[in-house]
Amino acid sequence: MSTDNLQIRLASRPQRWVREDNFRQVREAIPEPSEGQVLVKVRYLSLDPYMRGRMDDAKSYAAKVELGDVMVGGTVGEVAESRDERFQRGDRVVGMLGWQQYGVCDARELRKIDVSRVPETVYLGTVGMPGVTAWYGLTHIGEPKPGETVLVSAASGAVGSVVGQLAKIKGCRAVGIAGGPAKCGYVVEELGFDACVDYKAGRLEQDLAEATPDGVDVYYDNVGGPILDAALDRLNPFARIPLCGLISGYNGQPMAIHNVRSLLINRVKLQGFIVTEHPDVWPQALRQLGEWVAQGRIKYRETITEGLENAPQAFIGLLKGENFGKQLIKVA
Amino acid sequence: MSTDNLQIRLASRPQRWVREDNFRQVREAIPEPSEGQVLVKVRYLSLDPYMRGRMDDAKSYAAKVELGDVMVGGTVGEVAESRDERFQRGDRVVGMLGWQQYGVCDARELRKIDVSRVPETVYLGTVGMPGVTAWYGLTHIGEPKPGETVLVSAASGAVGSVVGQLAKIKGCRAVGIAGGPAKCGYVVEELGFDACVDYKAGRLEQDLAEATPDGVDVYYDNVGGPILDAALDRLNPFARIPLCGLISGYNGQPMAIHNVRSLLINRVKLQGFIVTEHPDVWPQALRQLGEWVAQGRIKYRETITEGLENAPQAFIGLLKGENFGKQLIKVA
Repeated sequence: MSTDNLQIRLASRPQRWVREDNFRQVREAIPEPSEGQVLVKVRYLSLDPYMRGRMDDAKSYAAKVELGDVMVGGTVGEVAESRDERFQRGDRVVGMLGWQQYGVCDARELRKIDVSRVPETVYLGTVGMPGVTAWYGLTHIGEPKPGETVLVSAASGAVGSVVGQLAKIKGCRAVGIAGGPAKCGYVVEELGFDACVDYKAGRLEQDLAEATPDGVDVYYDNVGGPILDAALDRLNPFARIPLCGLISGYNGQPMAIHNVRSLLINRVKLQGFIVTEHPDVWPQALRQLGEWVAQGRIKYRETITEGLENAPQAFIGLLKGENFGKQLIKVA
Repeated sequence: MSTDNLQIRLASRPQRWVREDNFRQVREAIPEPSEGQVLVKVRYLSLDPYMRGRMDDAKSYAAKVELGDVMVGGTVGEVAESRDERFQRGDRVVGMLGWQQYGVCDARELRKIDVSRVPETVYLGTVGMPGVTAWYGLTHIGEPKPGETVLVSAASGAVGSVVGQLAKIKGCRAVGIAGGPAKCGYVVEELGFDACVDYKAGRLEQDLAEATPDGVDVYYDNVGGPILDAALDRLNPFARIPLCGLISGYNGQPMAIHNVRSLLINRVKLQGFIVTEHPDVWPQALRQLGEWVAQGRIKYRETITEGLENAPQAFIGLLKGENFGKQLIKVA
């Protein structure tokens, strides 16, 4: 039996912070597709904060990863063998093959991608789930109007970077929050945000007030915790909060917010969402995002780590905010 | 100059809890209406939690009461003198005349009431602002579907009692939260809720879990704080939270909520609102509520305190949850 398929499986559930020994590397045989299935050779694996939630035993919106199972994850790859007429060997595809070198799935779970105008990796970021997450939350929940101020946390990340650039396209003032001067500089100078607040500088409240002189109409929240609290303090009446992620909670830190009063006195709408539950918006979102990326109107940055065996370490770094832009693993 | 108009004015802003010396009693001349105005002799004054917010200097959704001004408040009364053709002496009216025996206002700020089918006091409660608050929050934000579970805090109060009864009319399971066995008994036996949890019994989480075996689809929040936190823990996916009041915050206690994660993982919509900003719904809401009260389908309870001079003490009791049902002051 061949053992050519390196996989990374969940070995144990994390206590607070994720550690490398929560994962186990395994070598298995390359699987065979059944009728209607496709075998994909993974080229890039996407690492995303939601994966942290799947490692827990807790009730969540998505099925947890069982102990011993291959970690879930979005991938781009190449069709190695197809038993479905819609795909043939060599096609570039996106799918959820997980943390492994080869995977099999039903043909309907794959989507062909056009790599002539947009590089393949971007289908895991700006023209993939993170991009659609930004697009859906901003346009369907945030509903920003020209001239309004849109604030977004994790602004240099895969979702936040798109939120701010979409806000600029819509004629808004875009303000980011990010960790450290390098990320903040990138957000303003490369991505074109109007301002970016460095939450690590220790003056979050004051800096946020200076960066949002007209208050905040949309706060796109990717992190929760104290940054959410600080943002609540800047809200204008009738502000909207698309609630997308709570990175600061994924590691077990306290997630209390104190400024609940702002939600009432400003008649705020706060809405949690999961983009995979809104499949109807994906085609329009992907088409717009793809065009804007091809035209250079939406920019992106990637951190690419070589080798699937390094995925656990890169994932731990992602949860600590060590990556810069979209975190990917080059698998092959 | 006559001094026949007893008024209660704001003497100082409260530090945390409201005290009687935050108010001052004053006797003034009965005012004269100008052209287009009406002089109203107040019969009943409504006491409501929102008044606590008006006593602070803080930014809020409504103008604060200035030091030395008459306290704001909803009233029913009798037209004593009219300089507008729409009203004549003796008409029963609702308006915002405040904590005083006589007041003048523009005719367009008054609404005539029909006291033949519904007692006049009810226009300050179930068929007034509290009732419309319940109606708007439940129907427009909560959007309950038959068979769903609607949970409401301050369930024996002016708003909460209507929320639960409307939920029953809509075919939902109605569960209340109230303080003490007397209020809980009333909520179940008189108002017809399916269950009521006594938050003072010290087993909030367990009792709430037992009372909501199928989880919670709508949590109508009147109090915030630890009760909001406990309710967040019972939410079903796609739950809705009309955020109506934060009594537990009106006295300066910590208002932190810890269970923010539930908002994300359950894709919750939380929406703060102020019913006076939705004048379009008032006629429909008042018509429905008035009919249901007249038919006995919606029941109510009132605590009526005699004498305007006792309003400060009654208001302090309201903030501590000492009243039972709608708190009113019989002024004349």
